[in-house]
Amino acid sequence: MLEQIHLLAAVTVLGVLEQAYFFLQVIHARRRFGISPPNISGPPEFERIFRAQVNSSEYFPIFVALLWQAGLFFHQGLAAALGLLYLYSRYCYFMGYRASSSDSLGMSYGSQGCLSEPSVAEGHPHSSTVMLGLSPSRLTPIYFSTGVLWVLVAAATLGLLHFFLSHYVGLNVLRLLAA
Amino acid sequence: MLEQIHLLAAVTVLGVLEQAYFFLQVIHARRRFGISPPNISGPPEFERIFRAQVNSSEYFPIFVALLWQAGLFFHQGLAAALGLLYLYSRYCYFMGYRASSSDSLGMSYGSQGCLSEPSVAEGHPHSSTVMLGLSPSRLTPIYFSTGVLWVLVAAATLGLLHFFLSHYVGLNVLRLLAA
Amino acid sequence: MLEQIHLLAAVTVLGVLEQAYFFLQVIHARRRFGISPPNISGPPEFERIFRAQVNSSEYFPIFVALLWQAGLFFHQGLAAALGLLYLYSRYCYFMGYRASSSDSLGMSYGSQGCLSEPSVAEGHPHSSTVMLGLSPSRLTPIYFSTGVLWVLVAAATLGLLHFFLSHYVGLNVLRLLAA
Repeated sequence: MLEQIHLLAAVTVLGVLEQAYFFLQVIHARRRFGISPPNISGPPEFERIFRAQVNSSEYFPIFVALLWQAGLFFHQGLAAALGLLYLYSRYCYFMGYRASSSDSLGMSYGSQGCLSEPSVAEGHPHSSTVMLGLSPSRLTPIYFSTGVLWVLVAAATLGLLHFFLSHYVGLNVLRLLAA
Repeated sequence: MLEQIHLLAAVTVLGVLEQAYFFLQVIHARRRFGISPPNISGPPEFERIFRAQVNSSEYFPIFVALLWQAGLFFHQGLAAALGLLYLYSRYCYFMGYRASSSDSLGMSYGSQGCLSEPSVAEGHPHSSTVMLGLSPSRLTPIYFSTGVLWVLVAAATLGLLHFFLSHYVGLNVLRLLAA
Repeated sequence: MLEQIHLLAAVTVLGVLEQAYFFLQVIHARRRFGISPPNISGPPEFERIFRAQVNSSEYFPIFVALLWQAGLFFHQGLAAALGLLYLYSRYCYFMGYRASSSDSLGMSYGSQGCLSEPSVAEGHPHSSTVMLGLSPSRLTPIYFSTGVLWVLVAAATLGLLHFFLSHYVGLNVLRLLAA
């Protein structure tokens, strides 16, 4: 059994380590800005780090659930590779969210909406390096990570459909396509 | 192995899609009310949608954990059916929460407490249609979805008890009852 | 298959019951302080209970993910025992967080930082009893529960490393050590 899940398990543990990193960033920011729990409001710099961690936390169970369904019913290796891609883009998102100045965020939001492509004028060298010259903000990573999740949804759904068809209807789609 | 979990996997993916729908509603509300992240406060209409999504997110890992234990140790089909019921009542909850006016919410809270039955005078036609004439608010769905979770807890606990008894004590309760 | 996961499943269901208890505490506090959803701000007493529940919710999927990887790839019994320890320390954390007065929290934070050891002068008899004479606050339990998670991370990582080495490299570390 372990043979069919060891890659998924490894990516899951890696995802946990990423969450731990985000938690440590919030603790570090609480100390730096002197914001004691249960307070969660403070300067925009703190609130961005806090929200980035909360957002990543919210998505973690969804990510793990999709990773495992896609890995069990579609292809373990592909699901694990997509999982690594997701964790990487989450890291970029966190870094971009933390780095983005509240002014440029407000502007880009006011003019273009919540998840629209930001103006190139912002220019965060670090993020742009991380994302290999792509749009320098948290918005590209969040688009990208959401895209990866949708691919995992598609893989899980296709795998499940294939299983349901061959199990209940006796219809083996892959064999039909090969014939 | 996949035969014993395919229904659980399908309900899990469906649950992820529901979460995605709730996330999209929050993004839509952020745009509509002009509330840029990391802000999470705004008009009551926005805060209700935001809180409904956060609440559903918090319950998602609990739901998935229970679904799988109940499905693996009690009965896959029953657990999956309860899972569908849960997802349906969560949808009603989200719609009811979003629709409830803050005045009636405040009143019903002030007089009757956080999870009490609301007065029939409120009258939200949409929710009442959704819930087939039951109490027109988010409170009935949240009661209902919590009830489904408790049934899943009971199923998982019974299944585990049965497994522990037959595995460690050698006591097969079902065979005893049948004899 | 169930034989290899029944202890993990039992601890998972126990973890869900603990989460349910924390949720009920928040509902109780909402009623007591008259704070209607979607409001999440109120007197410090309420906010501490609310934040303690949110914090425990955030960690729940991480805990479950680690518990299962450590149990599947390292040792089920050890992972389950660590899981029980984690749930116990989470309970102490919740009780300590709820009990700590905001004044002492503010002081201990201001002088010593977010996760530092609190002064012995605080003295919460209940917590100190629970933790068998250890430091009387939420900070010791949170340290302890985080420590348990790191042990689970280590167990899962070691177990996965062992599996990867023996599966891909054909290197059985345990047999080498025994020889």
